[in-house]
Amino acid sequence: MPFSHFADRLTDAVKLKKTPLIVGIDPRTNQLPAELLDDNTGMAERFAKFGMAVIDAVADLVPAVKPQAAFFEQLGPAGCVAMASVVDYAVDKGLIVVMDAKRGDIGSTAQAYAAAYLGPKPESAWGCDCLTVNPYMGDDTLTPFVDAANRTGSGLFVLAKTSNPGSDWIQAQCEDDQPIYHLVADEIQRLSADNIGKSGYGNIGAVVGATYPEQLSELRERMPNTLFLIPGFGAQGGTASDVAGGLDENGLGGLINSSRGVIFAYEKDQYAKLNWQDAIRQAAVDTVDRIADGTSASRLR
Amino acid sequence: MPFSHFADRLTDAVKLKKTPLIVGIDPRTNQLPAELLDDNTGMAERFAKFGMAVIDAVADLVPAVKPQAAFFEQLGPAGCVAMASVVDYAVDKGLIVVMDAKRGDIGSTAQAYAAAYLGPKPESAWGCDCLTVNPYMGDDTLTPFVDAANRTGSGLFVLAKTSNPGSDWIQAQCEDDQPIYHLVADEIQRLSADNIGKSGYGNIGAVVGATYPEQLSELRERMPNTLFLIPGFGAQGGTASDVAGGLDENGLGGLINSSRGVIFAYEKDQYAKLNWQDAIRQAAVDTVDRIADGTSASRLR
Repeated sequence: MPFSHFADRLTDAVKLKKTPLIVGIDPRTNQLPAELLDDNTGMAERFAKFGMAVIDAVADLVPAVKPQAAFFEQLGPAGCVAMASVVDYAVDKGLIVVMDAKRGDIGSTAQAYAAAYLGPKPESAWGCDCLTVNPYMGDDTLTPFVDAANRTGSGLFVLAKTSNPGSDWIQAQCEDDQPIYHLVADEIQRLSADNIGKSGYGNIGAVVGATYPEQLSELRERMPNTLFLIPGFGAQGGTASDVAGGLDENGLGGLINSSRGVIFAYEKDQYAKLNWQDAIRQAAVDTVDRIADGTSASRLR
Repeated sequence: MPFSHFADRLTDAVKLKKTPLIVGIDPRTNQLPAELLDDNTGMAERFAKFGMAVIDAVADLVPAVKPQAAFFEQLGPAGCVAMASVVDYAVDKGLIVVMDAKRGDIGSTAQAYAAAYLGPKPESAWGCDCLTVNPYMGDDTLTPFVDAANRTGSGLFVLAKTSNPGSDWIQAQCEDDQPIYHLVADEIQRLSADNIGKSGYGNIGAVVGATYPEQLSELRERMPNTLFLIPGFGAQGGTASDVAGGLDENGLGGLINSSRGVIFAYEKDQYAKLNWQDAIRQAAVDTVDRIADGTSASRLR
C-alpha cells in the first residue's frame, strides 16, 4: 500500500513536533564518538550504530531525518547495508526519511532510482519517504521520479539553488534575464501544483540554500505550493533570519536541515559536560529553539 | 598504490582492443535471459551472474565496461553487493570500469563519493577506474572529485551535453550567446589540461551524447585534451556517423557506449539462433565493426 500524500504527512509531522528541523545523518569516520571506536566492530557497523543513536536522541523532537548516501556508499556494500538499517530504524521510530542522494538520470534509469528509494517497502527497496534529485539532465528526466512520487505518496526535493559558494556557476546563469534556478523553480512549482494536498503543498519540493536568503524569500513567493528543503543552516553559516524567508506565515512549507551542528555536538565546548547522545539531543533542542526564535516556526508552538 | 594516469591507461586499452566501444551493464529485471530465471536465486544474485556473463562474453573484445548503479541500487543493499561483485570481476578480467552513477555534491560529501568509487581498493571502497559526475551544483563541487581522480590515477566523465530529448532544457540555455554546456565544457577542458598524460588527454572527461552529432564535433574541437564518453549509440538512435565527430583522427579520445544493443542482443531476431551469451558476444563484435566502418576507429585496426 502506498503512503498517503507526502506533503500532507510532512506537514502533519511538522505540526506535531512543532518544528521544521530535519536532522542530517552524515556519519564521518574521523568524527564518531570515542565510545563507538572502542568496540571491535567494522566501520559500517559503527555508522549504523551512530545513525541509530542519533535517531534515538532526536526522534521525539523532529519530524524528519536526512541520511546522506555518500557517507554510507564510501564504505562499499557494507555501508549500504548500514544505510538500510538506519532508514529502517528511522521509519520504525515514525520519522519521515529524506534520502539525500541527489540522483538523476534518463528514462528507465531514473525509474530504477525511483524504484530504489521512493515509497514504502516493498514498493521501493530502501523504503524512503523522499529523495533529493538533480535536474541538470533535463525536465524529461524528472518525470519518472515525479510519477513514482505521486504514485507512492512519496516526495522529491529537486535541486534548485544550492547552498555552496559555487552554486551560481550554472544555477545563476541567465537567459532573457531569467536565471537557471528560476527555470528549475518554475518547473518544480508546476509539478507540485499538479497534485496539491490538504496542506496546500505538493509532493515535488525544491532544495534552496539558506546561504542565499534573498533568493529564498524570492523563491518562496514564486513557488507557493512547493515544499523547501533548506540546507546551509548552522555549519555552513546560515542563521535563523537567513532561513526565515523559506517558511510560510504559519511556519510550514519547509524543512530546515542541520547535520554537523547537531550530530557532532559532542565536539563543541558548550556540550562537553554531556555524554555524546545527550549532547546531540541538547543541540537538537537548542536548534529547534533558535529556529523558532528567528522564524515563523514560532507559530507552531 | 594508485593507478597510473587514467587517460593513458584508457588509451592503451583502446589501442589494444582496437575499438572505443564500452559496454554498459544495465541489468533489468524483466529482460534477463530465461536461463537465469530458472534457478532458485534472488534477483540480486541473478544481476551479479548476468553482469559477470556479459563480462565473460566481451572481455577480450572491448577496453571497458560501464555498470549503471541505478539498476543495482534498485535491489537495495543486496543489489549493492551484486554491483561490487560485478566491478571486481571486471577488474580481474583487466577491463577498465566506468561507474555510471552520476554523483554530485558539495565539499566533504563529494569527497565521500570520490572515496567510494575512485581508485583501486583499498584507496576506494568499490575500486572503480572512473565515475560519471553531475556538475549542476557548481564548479567548486567538481574539485574534490578532480583531486581524487588525479591523486588515484582514476578518471571522471562530467555531464556536459547528454543524449536525452530534454537535455537542452538547462544545458542549452544561453548567457551572452554561450550555452551552459559550453561553460561546463570549458571548465572540463581546463581541468583536463592541468594533468595531460602521454596520450595527450587528461583524466577529466566529458559526457557528450551521440544524439547531438553537431555538438559532438563542435565540442571535440573545443576540448582537445578531453576524453569523451558518448552515450546514445544504438538503442537511443545514434549511428556510427553520429558518433564519428567525437573521436580524434586516430580513433582515440572517446568511448562509445552501447548498453541494451549489446547486453540484450538475445532478444533480437538476428541473434535468435545463438545462445544468449553468444548473442551478446556477436552483438559486441558487430557493434565494434559498425563503429570501425563509420568512424576513425578504423585507424585502430
